[in-house]
Amino acid sequence: MTIETAIQALSAQFGPRLSRAEAILQQHGQSESYYPLTLPDAVLFPESTAEVSDIIRICAAHHCPVIAFGTGTSLEGHQLAVEGGISLDLSRMNAVLAINAEDMDVVVQPGVTREQLNQDLRATGLFFPVDPGANASLGGMAATRASGTTALRYGTMKENVMALEVVMADGSIIRTGTRARKSSAGYDLTKLMVGSEGTLGIITELTLRLQGQPEAISAATCAFADVQGAVNTVITTIQSGIPMARMELIDANMVRGFNIADGTTLPEQPHLFVEFHGSEGAVAEQADSFREIVEEHGGSDFKWALKAEDRARLWKMRHNAFYAHKALAPTLRAMATDICVPISRLAEAIEFAEVKSRALDLTCTIIGHVGDGNFHCALSFDMDDKAQFERVQDFMHELAETAIALNGTVTGEHGVGIGKMKYMQAEHGEALHTMRLIKRALDPQNILNPGKLLPPSNT
Amino acid sequence: MTIETAIQALSAQFGPRLSRAEAILQQHGQSESYYPLTLPDAVLFPESTAEVSDIIRICAAHHCPVIAFGTGTSLEGHQLAVEGGISLDLSRMNAVLAINAEDMDVVVQPGVTREQLNQDLRATGLFFPVDPGANASLGGMAATRASGTTALRYGTMKENVMALEVVMADGSIIRTGTRARKSSAGYDLTKLMVGSEGTLGIITELTLRLQGQPEAISAATCAFADVQGAVNTVITTIQSGIPMARMELIDANMVRGFNIADGTTLPEQPHLFVEFHGSEGAVAEQADSFREIVEEHGGSDFKWALKAEDRARLWKMRHNAFYAHKALAPTLRAMATDICVPISRLAEAIEFAEVKSRALDLTCTIIGHVGDGNFHCALSFDMDDKAQFERVQDFMHELAETAIALNGTVTGEHGVGIGKMKYMQAEHGEALHTMRLIKRALDPQNILNPGKLLPPSNT
Repeated sequence: MTIETAIQALSAQFGPRLSRAEAILQQHGQSESYYPLTLPDAVLFPESTAEVSDIIRICAAHHCPVIAFGTGTSLEGHQLAVEGGISLDLSRMNAVLAINAEDMDVVVQPGVTREQLNQDLRATGLFFPVDPGANASLGGMAATRASGTTALRYGTMKENVMALEVVMADGSIIRTGTRARKSSAGYDLTKLMVGSEGTLGIITELTLRLQGQPEAISAATCAFADVQGAVNTVITTIQSGIPMARMELIDANMVRGFNIADGTTLPEQPHLFVEFHGSEGAVAEQADSFREIVEEHGGSDFKWALKAEDRARLWKMRHNAFYAHKALAPTLRAMATDICVPISRLAEAIEFAEVKSRALDLTCTIIGHVGDGNFHCALSFDMDDKAQFERVQDFMHELAETAIALNGTVTGEHGVGIGKMKYMQAEHGEALHTMRLIKRALDPQNILNPGKLLPPSNT
Repeated sequence: MTIETAIQALSAQFGPRLSRAEAILQQHGQSESYYPLTLPDAVLFPESTAEVSDIIRICAAHHCPVIAFGTGTSLEGHQLAVEGGISLDLSRMNAVLAINAEDMDVVVQPGVTREQLNQDLRATGLFFPVDPGANASLGGMAATRASGTTALRYGTMKENVMALEVVMADGSIIRTGTRARKSSAGYDLTKLMVGSEGTLGIITELTLRLQGQPEAISAATCAFADVQGAVNTVITTIQSGIPMARMELIDANMVRGFNIADGTTLPEQPHLFVEFHGSEGAVAEQADSFREIVEEHGGSDFKWALKAEDRARLWKMRHNAFYAHKALAPTLRAMATDICVPISRLAEAIEFAEVKSRALDLTCTIIGHVGDGNFHCALSFDMDDKAQFERVQDFMHELAETAIALNGTVTGEHGVGIGKMKYMQAEHGEALHTMRLIKRALDPQNILNPGKLLPPSNT
């Protein structure tokens, strides 16, 4: 029983939908981040839940690893076959199965991307709010507990996945949750699966909450003399209960990147990019209240983006921040990390990142969903400059430790994957053992995305 | 190794804090519902997490059941020692450990009640919104995934518990989650523990999200010719995105109960009781929009409760609905159940309850958090009238099956306990096996609240 015998059995059943072509393996073995190319032994394109179940049964019988693959946009190497095996590409399971407009929910297959879903929803007046930047698959977004710029108002995948269909490690198919808005009936397996990164089961169907398109939207940008002013504005705004839809901090370096990459002429100071959703009256009121808070904290250069195309440009620029970061040092590669801390510790965490990156002479940009206490650092490095790469890794390491020291988490939204495994013990302590017990109970052979999320244990 | 040897060991360590006094056993063996008196073998009053850990280690060594006890307000018999053992009364662990006003969170021990917490928060301008009616303990509310009238706006315990400290079945102490607003770092053990009804661990500390006291609050009541009109009003309101704080349906029978018990003179028709939270402007706008929707759906008798004391009276009356139900048939006992369905199926579910209870000649009242699709039925019965009691049970059974048939859940907020165990297979199917695997992995001896949540299995 080996990976090869599994592939023979799968090939007999799936024919050309099992591929070992080099280009396909490469596509499924690469990462958007700095992880080295890590090829799976084969890529399989299932078209139904029943097929996924068959595949898992065969892989279980042959003790062959299976790694779910969505769009490959993970930043922490979740999709890499570090122990070989089958990359299970769910992109052909991309049907929107039911739009329940009256209940404001939708049932989709895991390969549907968030942009595809919102395109399909256009006529309904509803939308799916979770917005991680990349046009990721909804299965992948659930598996990594993704969030993004709108989590502040609408929550993360955790709050927006109502129910799942999951193929378990023995090939059995379970349904977790219902279309009811709430339930107290038993263990919350939906929330256990969300964020489990393909290590406990393969998500084959999702029921998602939708939101009504707001009657009015307005966005604005404003500048601050320092990050502290911006962060204090954020804290006061959150405490005032203004239901911000988006609230993004952009540090001065990142603004410089935008000015280069996007041709903007923003003052090279820390900025907040914000958005308000609601009725016409509510949006106007929220915006007024926010503007007052900005002025109290010494903000300036307050600019509205009232037209839809101006807002689209603003958020497109924000979503392409990683490319704008690269514009600051075009010959170098870049790596991004994310942490999340209680909002009262946000200024400290950001200051740490600024001071530390300067001390290490690194090109660093900071951008964040600061209303949630979550921010990202991107750092440039030259793969051939080993000392620099080590400084980047030192930075990443110290930032993760800082997050834990400030009662936060080493990842607010990117997930653990390979990159953050080494912090699981420090962040979770004894609870890591509980996670391992659950993993062993649900995947005793460790065939589901092995080598991810849970660091190797000595027991 | 027996319950008796465990009690000897515990008694040696805890002295008079272990009680076998009949009155204490009775207090911990009764239920607010119709379950028969079920005495534990002893009641123990721990005062710290370390003590809870010691107790669990001793009980594990002696294979002795341990049942967490909060305020005893469960409606599904969660706290009853159906297999004997120790009732672990957490009421002495009732300290508010930290109020983090800037982060809008609070750290509490499990015995703190929701009213005590809100009393302590009064000076901060913050409040804890989850409101199940009873002045339950926060540990118990987390364990049963409680919600209540404000879940529509602020979520249930699931959305409001950020982090937990839990003593596991081997006595180890784990911490789940952090004070950061979001995390993608590993399995969501917090959400697994919320709603696990003391079967996976004993919650010894909770970190809870708080909300800012709204600048303005207004409440209103309105009447409808039939339930359908009220439900259609609810659906349209939710779809319009009006951020209702509370939205309660009261059926005509229940209104009659209020008129008797509370001396009100409401027209004996279905009513909605609603509340708006926000800025002055937002509340006025929301209320106007809602009133328009009410009028479109033939609502009448629209009355404002603008003063704080009027609102307090309104919601106190709502919270005492069970007693108002009893006023309809003062010589009988009453039993309540709860289901939750997708909002598009709500009218069907309520109509089923109305028609069925009439057909069975039962005194039935319906009251519900209808914005969530969740409602309760209370039914009167005479313990000595066996045929009537059987009709009540038939009703409960058919209502639960209706909930499942309508893609809903057999309990929206009361939990499984003893009463809803028999529906776990029908509601969860294969997923029940996954729940059992988790239970076995985390509590292999089945000492934590045995005989609850998971029905006995044949395997």
